[in-house]
Amino acid sequence: MIIIMKTHATMREKSAVIAWAEDAGYKIHLSEGSEQTVVGIIGDGRPLNREQAARMAGVERVVPILKPFKVASREFKQEDTVFPIGSHMVGGKGLVIMAGPCSVESRSQIIETAHAVKEAGAHILRGGAFKPRTSPYSFQGLGEEGLKYLAEAREETGLPIITEVTEPALVPLVCEYADILQIGARNMQNYALLHAVGKSQHPVLLKRGMSSFIEEWLMCAEYILSHGNTRVMLCERGIRTFETYTRNTFDINAIAVAKHLSHLPVIADPSHATGKWEYVAAATKASIAAGADGVILEVHPRPEEALSDGIQSLKPGRFAKLVKQMKAVAEAVDRHID
Amino acid sequence: MIIIMKTHATMREKSAVIAWAEDAGYKIHLSEGSEQTVVGIIGDGRPLNREQAARMAGVERVVPILKPFKVASREFKQEDTVFPIGSHMVGGKGLVIMAGPCSVESRSQIIETAHAVKEAGAHILRGGAFKPRTSPYSFQGLGEEGLKYLAEAREETGLPIITEVTEPALVPLVCEYADILQIGARNMQNYALLHAVGKSQHPVLLKRGMSSFIEEWLMCAEYILSHGNTRVMLCERGIRTFETYTRNTFDINAIAVAKHLSHLPVIADPSHATGKWEYVAAATKASIAAGADGVILEVHPRPEEALSDGIQSLKPGRFAKLVKQMKAVAEAVDRHID
Amino acid sequence: MIIIMKTHATMREKSAVIAWAEDAGYKIHLSEGSEQTVVGIIGDGRPLNREQAARMAGVERVVPILKPFKVASREFKQEDTVFPIGSHMVGGKGLVIMAGPCSVESRSQIIETAHAVKEAGAHILRGGAFKPRTSPYSFQGLGEEGLKYLAEAREETGLPIITEVTEPALVPLVCEYADILQIGARNMQNYALLHAVGKSQHPVLLKRGMSSFIEEWLMCAEYILSHGNTRVMLCERGIRTFETYTRNTFDINAIAVAKHLSHLPVIADPSHATGKWEYVAAATKASIAAGADGVILEVHPRPEEALSDGIQSLKPGRFAKLVKQMKAVAEAVDRHID
Amino acid sequence: MIIIMKTHATMREKSAVIAWAEDAGYKIHLSEGSEQTVVGIIGDGRPLNREQAARMAGVERVVPILKPFKVASREFKQEDTVFPIGSHMVGGKGLVIMAGPCSVESRSQIIETAHAVKEAGAHILRGGAFKPRTSPYSFQGLGEEGLKYLAEAREETGLPIITEVTEPALVPLVCEYADILQIGARNMQNYALLHAVGKSQHPVLLKRGMSSFIEEWLMCAEYILSHGNTRVMLCERGIRTFETYTRNTFDINAIAVAKHLSHLPVIADPSHATGKWEYVAAATKASIAAGADGVILEVHPRPEEALSDGIQSLKPGRFAKLVKQMKAVAEAVDRHID
Repeated sequence: MIIIMKTHATMREKSAVIAWAEDAGYKIHLSEGSEQTVVGIIGDGRPLNREQAARMAGVERVVPILKPFKVASREFKQEDTVFPIGSHMVGGKGLVIMAGPCSVESRSQIIETAHAVKEAGAHILRGGAFKPRTSPYSFQGLGEEGLKYLAEAREETGLPIITEVTEPALVPLVCEYADILQIGARNMQNYALLHAVGKSQHPVLLKRGMSSFIEEWLMCAEYILSHGNTRVMLCERGIRTFETYTRNTFDINAIAVAKHLSHLPVIADPSHATGKWEYVAAATKASIAAGADGVILEVHPRPEEALSDGIQSLKPGRFAKLVKQMKAVAEAVDRHID
Repeated sequence: MIIIMKTHATMREKSAVIAWAEDAGYKIHLSEGSEQTVVGIIGDGRPLNREQAARMAGVERVVPILKPFKVASREFKQEDTVFPIGSHMVGGKGLVIMAGPCSVESRSQIIETAHAVKEAGAHILRGGAFKPRTSPYSFQGLGEEGLKYLAEAREETGLPIITEVTEPALVPLVCEYADILQIGARNMQNYALLHAVGKSQHPVLLKRGMSSFIEEWLMCAEYILSHGNTRVMLCERGIRTFETYTRNTFDINAIAVAKHLSHLPVIADPSHATGKWEYVAAATKASIAAGADGVILEVHPRPEEALSDGIQSLKPGRFAKLVKQMKAVAEAVDRHID
Repeated sequence: MIIIMKTHATMREKSAVIAWAEDAGYKIHLSEGSEQTVVGIIGDGRPLNREQAARMAGVERVVPILKPFKVASREFKQEDTVFPIGSHMVGGKGLVIMAGPCSVESRSQIIETAHAVKEAGAHILRGGAFKPRTSPYSFQGLGEEGLKYLAEAREETGLPIITEVTEPALVPLVCEYADILQIGARNMQNYALLHAVGKSQHPVLLKRGMSSFIEEWLMCAEYILSHGNTRVMLCERGIRTFETYTRNTFDINAIAVAKHLSHLPVIADPSHATGKWEYVAAATKASIAAGADGVILEVHPRPEEALSDGIQSLKPGRFAKLVKQMKAVAEAVDRHID
Repeated sequence: MIIIMKTHATMREKSAVIAWAEDAGYKIHLSEGSEQTVVGIIGDGRPLNREQAARMAGVERVVPILKPFKVASREFKQEDTVFPIGSHMVGGKGLVIMAGPCSVESRSQIIETAHAVKEAGAHILRGGAFKPRTSPYSFQGLGEEGLKYLAEAREETGLPIITEVTEPALVPLVCEYADILQIGARNMQNYALLHAVGKSQHPVLLKRGMSSFIEEWLMCAEYILSHGNTRVMLCERGIRTFETYTRNTFDINAIAVAKHLSHLPVIADPSHATGKWEYVAAATKASIAAGADGVILEVHPRPEEALSDGIQSLKPGRFAKLVKQMKAVAEAVDRHID
């Protein structure tokens, strides 16, 4: 930690800052410039509260040196995290494709879609049973019934399933059915939920909050990892900015940055990142070119009848074409899709 | 709902849209311009799914006419919602001042602060027992012990208490101690939590999410109101933007807008909205001038020792001065602080 | 400047950084922690290029210590800048009110408005003759004809006039007529224009760019000040964020921050900061409570006929009422409006 | 244009709106719902001012139907705009690579770089002679001397050159030397400059402003096109958002959207879009996968000595490797790089 003192900080104020750090067991390096004094705090003392330092008299600002996340960081683990989901590896050279409808709407809808996406080349089936909706008056998902239909679809097709869990109390139930737990963007900082999925030891896909710094996202992964649950995938799904033409702004940079800062696999969600099916193919190909370890896509047999997110859902035929294009791009960047 | 068709939409596409709306029981007004056709949907049919319309062939975009929130809206209830908290009314001509530390750190700290803020003119004591923290390694609050200290502080001073509840499972416990439940910005769209506090029938302070549209914020109030819990206060606490000099950008416009769109009281949180104690006084006075029904402020006897948010906490002496300034501004806008 | 080295930086990389700074005439303070090395650069050497440092091998990041603006800063000049415009002082205890239409539309319109705003209490008349418009097909202003009408309005009412200048070549012409040159938000970083108005020695109102950091805004003031033109007013007019309900998000914090960092007067523009006349009064009162040195407001006798920005313009009657409210708020914060 | 009336709009208010549109020569379609009245305005009348409508009594909001840009739109011209720059076509199946330093720093620097980027596969040489810099105290470019060095580099290598023009008065001078005029992000809405480059009939690369809507960007292209200058390239260079880890947020969606809305070629600027050379390769490959018609990249022989933007500049060796990767990605999406 580096503490930059105000231009007119007094000797007494400087001494207080130094004493505070020394009392916690640190060494001090003092740089007195003609205009400003900088206090460098080094060594291994008791954890220091950065906010306390910022509030001390005469302090201009505090610059942290170490990254706030540990277990999630590349410094902690240099090699990429790779783990199997079903018969497929996530995080390696092979990319993973998750596809399916936003919501499970009926038994036949999910089973029809499961067959279609499997045939087109998907490795994992997605589908929401518990839906966090902006309005209390909107369709809220089929709940456990939806989970049962997903399980049936898995039985029929062999595809592992991923579905969202929205509250801590539902984690045991969703774990009974799902292969991967999804944490939605709105719940990225729902810490009780992060603890619950951490404890569950189930694989987790953690979506980035719509206004979260990349470092905050990794801190949320850290919550899950701190329970020894290491099968965490990060998912970039677009952020909220001033631009309204697309539903979100796809932060394509975040894919490379997250992979640079962390060893965890990074999945892209082009459906939410664009919000319009017309742009999903471009965003999907860009994700792979940027280094994503996989994608999660909304596919619906009849989007115009979908109860949610139809506007960003691909039809199975278009999805199948896109899988072929994805394979070409994957090979161009020395990856592959099986 | 108005549906704007693409320039080259075919007769068949237009007919499909019209049939879809008529089947749901609506009347159609068709405007065929030289370049574009617009389909107006009126009357009282079955609820229509706007996303389905957007996904139909030939549709350019869908413009909703009605606001998505109902019970929270001024249309639903024209007069301001006013209700008592302890012996104080919230939402009327008199403004409410909530003050106290970010976190309850010890019995003596909260009791000392309670006396100080009461003496300075606060009506309600704030203090966090369950803290949502960015890092799993930071101080997470004293939990139930903190609630007990808050209750002691109330007994000693007579001040009602407000404290944050962070997960559905904790709602009954927090209701045992607190007079007002606070929903934090990160949990604004934690729907399970909104349902739980809605059912509790306890007064609720609902903070705006850091990247939430004003309409989304009101939709979250709608979740609580939909349980018949009408004692909801909205709280503007700053939004996340590109500007980093302050912790958040205080959306002062949102105060007047929320009061225009809704009948619910609006409280400002200048501590989080600025993130630096030096700017809290300016933001507080601005809130009142803009029409806020009250403020919630962080006050700590020794901010430089605070375990969280010390940098934005006022000392009791400065808080007392600010209360006097607030009274002057309140009177200038035809309100008052008792 | 402080340079934070990467965790695995080599001795050679560290030495290169140290040599680079020493060669420029600086002293080095080295802090070697167990995980990271920090190089503090102090003393008075030749200006260092921060970007060069950031690009050297082994460098993690560079933290500047000194603020980038000099003449605009409080460190450079501690007391507030106060100067006269006509018979009125700007920057002192008395607040300044500028009012008038977005565009000068006709001789009679501007003269009618000038009388109306003067009677209501305005000190300066605003009106645009050269209009930067989003569309090349929109009304672009009356040009020099508009300036002449403004000058006539000044003769009739005695009000000094402020008008926008949009390109360097127009500065001499606009200086012939105007008492204050306005730099619009879109032109905040039009450096050729900043140089031209700096050289003109005319008073300048510098609007903040819609996505400018406060520090960038002050750097643009520095461009003007660097020509010895010290009569610069900063103008906060709202920033662009994700929120779309209002035209801009009024960054009320920026008023207090700009006054803290700089000695220059700060004027608020509630018309653009809200974009809807219904919210202008609340934003105006908030500006004054937050410490603004004045406001600039759009007033039009018949907003529904205005050729630009009618939606955010007040009618004279409402403006007159607002001036009374402004006076009350000004007194509540120990300022006054004459 | 569709006008949505307020819930309680009176008959008189509705009539006034209708009369206003009818007087301008339009037909009216009136939809009276139980809660709200919607006025559809169709046909070919005199241009209507949307802001006037919004300001009329009883009007809730105004929804425009037609896009504000005309000549730039796909509706106006369905096939892609393709034109030659030197011996290379822009906008067709072949992609264009522009590369070179941020600033021309010396004769030898630009000539060395020109040879290096040509050898690696670039088609056009970039380099800044007039630099818009945040600080008046930073290096401002070599001016005309820099243009001369660029021209020498072109003579030696045969590469056409692109360089930024920052003010209308400089357009004739820059046109003497440059093959393509670049409009920087800060000047996107410098309308005097847009008119000047429009009149020049030189090819133009128009960077998107850092907080510009895609539609505003296309409106600025419209300014240039309105002079009959059809050789305009759009350039996405990242937008300003809350995320600070990268210099900008690369709006990868904007590439596909701009190509959907307009027939103009779209070039990506991964150097500014990331601001860190480590992420430039990922962003470049993503651009091509997303459908960009080319890229503009910063390349410097010794970035650690660059006078500007060294942190985001590639060394020639790394650039050469990237060109090979770009070729592979281009072929994967059915494009090519010669």
